[in-house]
Amino acid sequence: MAVYTHLGAEQLAALIAEFDVGQLVSAKGIAEGVSNSNWLIETSGRDGAGARFILTMYEFRIEIEDLPFFLSLLDFLAAHGCPVPRTIHDRQGQLYRRLGDKAVALIEFLPGVSVSEPTAGQAHAVGRALAQLHLAAAGFDQARANGMGTAEWQRLADECTPAGLASIDADFAALVAQQLPELIANWPLHLPSSVIHADLFPDNVLMLGETVTGLIDFYFACTDITAYDVAVTHAAWCFDASGRQFDAAVSAALLAGYEELRPLSDEERAALPLLARGAAMRFALSRAYDWMNTPADALVMRKDPLAFARRLRFYADPANAAVFARA
Amino acid sequence: MAVYTHLGAEQLAALIAEFDVGQLVSAKGIAEGVSNSNWLIETSGRDGAGARFILTMYEFRIEIEDLPFFLSLLDFLAAHGCPVPRTIHDRQGQLYRRLGDKAVALIEFLPGVSVSEPTAGQAHAVGRALAQLHLAAAGFDQARANGMGTAEWQRLADECTPAGLASIDADFAALVAQQLPELIANWPLHLPSSVIHADLFPDNVLMLGETVTGLIDFYFACTDITAYDVAVTHAAWCFDASGRQFDAAVSAALLAGYEELRPLSDEERAALPLLARGAAMRFALSRAYDWMNTPADALVMRKDPLAFARRLRFYADPANAAVFARA
Repeated sequence: MAVYTHLGAEQLAALIAEFDVGQLVSAKGIAEGVSNSNWLIETSGRDGAGARFILTMYEFRIEIEDLPFFLSLLDFLAAHGCPVPRTIHDRQGQLYRRLGDKAVALIEFLPGVSVSEPTAGQAHAVGRALAQLHLAAAGFDQARANGMGTAEWQRLADECTPAGLASIDADFAALVAQQLPELIANWPLHLPSSVIHADLFPDNVLMLGETVTGLIDFYFACTDITAYDVAVTHAAWCFDASGRQFDAAVSAALLAGYEELRPLSDEERAALPLLARGAAMRFALSRAYDWMNTPADALVMRKDPLAFARRLRFYADPANAAVFARA
Repeated sequence: MAVYTHLGAEQLAALIAEFDVGQLVSAKGIAEGVSNSNWLIETSGRDGAGARFILTMYEFRIEIEDLPFFLSLLDFLAAHGCPVPRTIHDRQGQLYRRLGDKAVALIEFLPGVSVSEPTAGQAHAVGRALAQLHLAAAGFDQARANGMGTAEWQRLADECTPAGLASIDADFAALVAQQLPELIANWPLHLPSSVIHADLFPDNVLMLGETVTGLIDFYFACTDITAYDVAVTHAAWCFDASGRQFDAAVSAALLAGYEELRPLSDEERAALPLLARGAAMRFALSRAYDWMNTPADALVMRKDPLAFARRLRFYADPANAAVFARA
């Protein structure tokens, strides 16, 4: 969460004038986004009745290169009925604008709040929304490699080093050493793939009651195993933040909601325990890397890697395989 | 700018339910406030037509003790026609609510953006708004000592030490050593006092074109020399950010706007060069203290103390006294 760049009112007004959205009325830097800066923008609207948008500034080359994929994916999914924010095209029809060495995009504002303690009803709705996304994305003709796939897990583990992982927690280092080679060797690359969100944590879902009003933050979206996205979402929604407490009702509701729209094949079902171990490994390792490379006194919140090491242990325990068994 | 505390949707919804403002529709942590956390909140509104608010969480004891002053001042000024946000009282009529050891207040959202390069027309409007605030505040019956007055300047200079100030810039240390005793000895305590904003930088003024739509961030508001507030505002608006470039047209417009509503007495006019030196000293010293006590790699933006040392030199130069002479 950050606002890296200061944009004065004059710059903001000039930027907003490049879009057909009325006059700038308000702009507040918001504490969202990890590597980009975001503002909640209000304008007079095309009809004078007011309109709101999220303005995002992308600062890093790698993110800017992928912008056409991310932004046209939003447009495609919105056009196919998914609750995702549309990209507002500028007066020349462009998806984003360059501003020096940065890029900016104007994105539809969606109502809703992110839940912290999901109910089964909310998990059911999220499962449905994820299936809807996968079905709609089947028609999207662009692809993007998963930069956080198995090769990256190995690289992160190597960078952390066994000693580094052990400095976080001795059992954690042993868990990675035991699980990682097995996951990579058995990763089910033969399963159906599609565009996936790959990061559908509660933070990235806007809800009003039990209705999903927005799936947001697609900056990890990529082409990968479809059922892996179910596993990531399961790991993200079915535990308390510490990873100690599994919620069986939320888990069952999430899977049932998903299968209402996209039933899992027997092969996908059978692979879910492995995919969920992989999902837990992915976040345990990226968090471990960030943990070791973020000064303890920095004002960025470090996320505890052990919260996902605990999930990994849960998924690796054969006694818990029933979680993914067909009801 | 910060959001220190995470508030989940469930906690936010429960909190908003304590106010008669409709249902929670959206909440975004915003990058404003130095020692408190802020959210831009949208609700369905009392009439279902939607409404927006700023929710502020106060984390520090000292700020919470002063909340009755700050929040009832906003109410008083708004009731007297000043463009300041009203405090939304809760269903029990309270100005703020306790949440554990913290406090939260719901404040009216005002449109407008903060300018970076003020025009003379904008400075004129800000001068008028400041005079309006001073006139209205005359009827406010609460008082608060200025925690950033001359005694605090001395304390900050002592804490920084001459060697510390010299480590920022050798000339800066000499300037403080020369100016500070003189300012304290001659500080015009006999001038009229009132409630003052004491921090009316462009960041704390919302504008649409040349109209002031909001004066915000009253957390330095206190009872002090009224003309000192004019001097603070002058130092904040009439220079470029580096303090190198003085804008005579903005200066003249600011003072003319102010005097349209509250003409300065001859004594106040005559004291302005000294008061402006004091204003520049106050920000130079608080910034120097923050500079020396903020790690260079922290993610908080350190503000350059020399930008106000340059203003101090400008105001101390007799050749510039004409800036404050009656036209």
